Amino acid sequence: MPELKERFTNYIHELQDQICAAVEKSDGKARFREDNWERDGGGGGRTRVISGGKVFEKGGVNCSVVHGELPELIRSRFGVDQGWFFAAGISLVLHPENPMVPTVHANYRMFELYDEEGGDRRDAWFGGGADLTPYYLFDEDAAHFHQVHKNACDAISPALFPDFKKECDAYFHNAHRGEARGVGGIFYDYKRDETGDGSGLEKWFSLAKSCGDAFTSSYIPIVEKRKELSYTDEQRYWQEIRRGRYVEFNLVHDRGTLFGLKTNGRVESILMSLPPRVRWDYASEPKAGTDEERLVQVLSEPRSWAK
Amino acid sequence: MPELKERFTNYIHELQDQICAAVEKSDGKARFREDNWERDGGGGGRTRVISGGKVFEKGGVNCSVVHGELPELIRSRFGVDQGWFFAAGISLVLHPENPMVPTVHANYRMFELYDEEGGDRRDAWFGGGADLTPYYLFDEDAAHFHQVHKNACDAISPALFPDFKKECDAYFHNAHRGEARGVGGIFYDYKRDETGDGSGLEKWFSLAKSCGDAFTSSYIPIVEKRKELSYTDEQRYWQEIRRGRYVEFNLVHDRGTLFGLKTNGRVESILMSLPPRVRWDYASEPKAGTDEERLVQVLSEPRSWAK
Repeated sequence: MPELKERFTNYIHELQDQICAAVEKSDGKARFREDNWERDGGGGGRTRVISGGKVFEKGGVNCSVVHGELPELIRSRFGVDQGWFFAAGISLVLHPENPMVPTVHANYRMFELYDEEGGDRRDAWFGGGADLTPYYLFDEDAAHFHQVHKNACDAISPALFPDFKKECDAYFHNAHRGEARGVGGIFYDYKRDETGDGSGLEKWFSLAKSCGDAFTSSYIPIVEKRKELSYTDEQRYWQEIRRGRYVEFNLVHDRGTLFGLKTNGRVESILMSLPPRVRWDYASEPKAGTDEERLVQVLSEPRSWAK
Repeated sequence: MPELKERFTNYIHELQDQICAAVEKSDGKARFREDNWERDGGGGGRTRVISGGKVFEKGGVNCSVVHGELPELIRSRFGVDQGWFFAAGISLVLHPENPMVPTVHANYRMFELYDEEGGDRRDAWFGGGADLTPYYLFDEDAAHFHQVHKNACDAISPALFPDFKKECDAYFHNAHRGEARGVGGIFYDYKRDETGDGSGLEKWFSLAKSCGDAFTSSYIPIVEKRKELSYTDEQRYWQEIRRGRYVEFNLVHDRGTLFGLKTNGRVESILMSLPPRVRWDYASEPKAGTDEERLVQVLSEPRSWAK
């Protein structure tokens, strides 16, 4: 059987194809543009970006598979003088134009560390997650997104989802605003081979596959249900204000974004996550009793969505 | 004579009045809205925000005067178990609507540390600076802005400006983009009482006054010269793309912004610095031989503007 990192690499590229096909079909107009890039020091990526669609104003579904000497930032974080790494992942963000359609993010990744180039694996872990950011909240959409991800986790072990849901709420939190980025989903990181015989890592690979395979069915039905809804200029304005919060989270708090920017990652692939049009008003507050106010209330107190 | 911190506090409030009056006069339509706020733990601020003007799409000229127990983040940075502080400053950012008019930022601040509440001063320092961010570069505007600040620094000591100009280029640098935020100006920090008898601090207070007093004449003449220039939708689009870089700098690199957000500062006063309407496109590049490309070239290699 090929090595885990090869199988994971193959999987994320198949998943990228599958998700891009589903997104293009749902959009009905725009096609992904593909940029292949190489990384100084080893590896590269396949960035796929969509923009100006009928549904999707901007989005990216990116794979990267990189390896080489550990960047200084990681060496100091792990307290090691030298080391080599392998990292592979798929990362996607989709920003619909219609404020009734939520923004979505998902990411599945694996990491291996070695003492020397081509040497034995010293450490390895998986991480991943998916979360939904509505501008107008349809409870049934949040419930659907959570339920699909709960089912995908339960297929591996029923113990996983409750923790991952909590970790998601804790991670995608705009601490300076005292509110969640969105209605959450799942998040996990540093999932290692607890068994010591490699079967632990196989389990986390199965989890990534189970959740990755579930992505399309967690999100596209929501897009289909909302994409033809009409909306006003005021609702679009609100979406652009809320997109500002998305930018704030990604640039101030998101470990992946900051790590990428500080280790010479490919800036355009990293920042494809930023929304296309954004507003910041001073002290913008939703009016009492409105849908906008209800969204902010829900974001300030995470709730259970799955059954 | 009143204490230094009182005199500085009075000065920044007078400067706030003076700058707001000059900005309103140049705008000709919008007026500043004032929000007075108090800080849990001691002190507060006077935030003044302008928006929807004839010239200024959004801007703020804020004073804050805060004191109390040192936040945990500073205690750990300075390696002290306990301590009290006083901090006062004026901070302004003005985002014009017309892309021919540059964005400007300035900030003058002082900081004092004490071992115990109401105790003797253990440490004190001044910091400050001003920098200009054009979307379309008129060399004479950059030269004027630098020259006025050079003259203001030279009035205290001719040794200052060359260092402060270099520090500004180093500080307002979007490292992940490999380019400056704008055409620079001056920046200085941790300016202490080198003399040991307090006259050093008086010197830095004089510097803040000299530069603060010069602000209006460094910027408003540029606004007056450019505010009636016509511009196209494409030029406005470019301004919104470049404003994205401004957001990236403030949220990823700016120490003041991150410090404020991580120590429970008043979010709306801190983030008044963010531009009102912003765009992020994937891999947006200016065309060869255009004004837009020339700007990016100048930003990638800081140059001397003052004589």
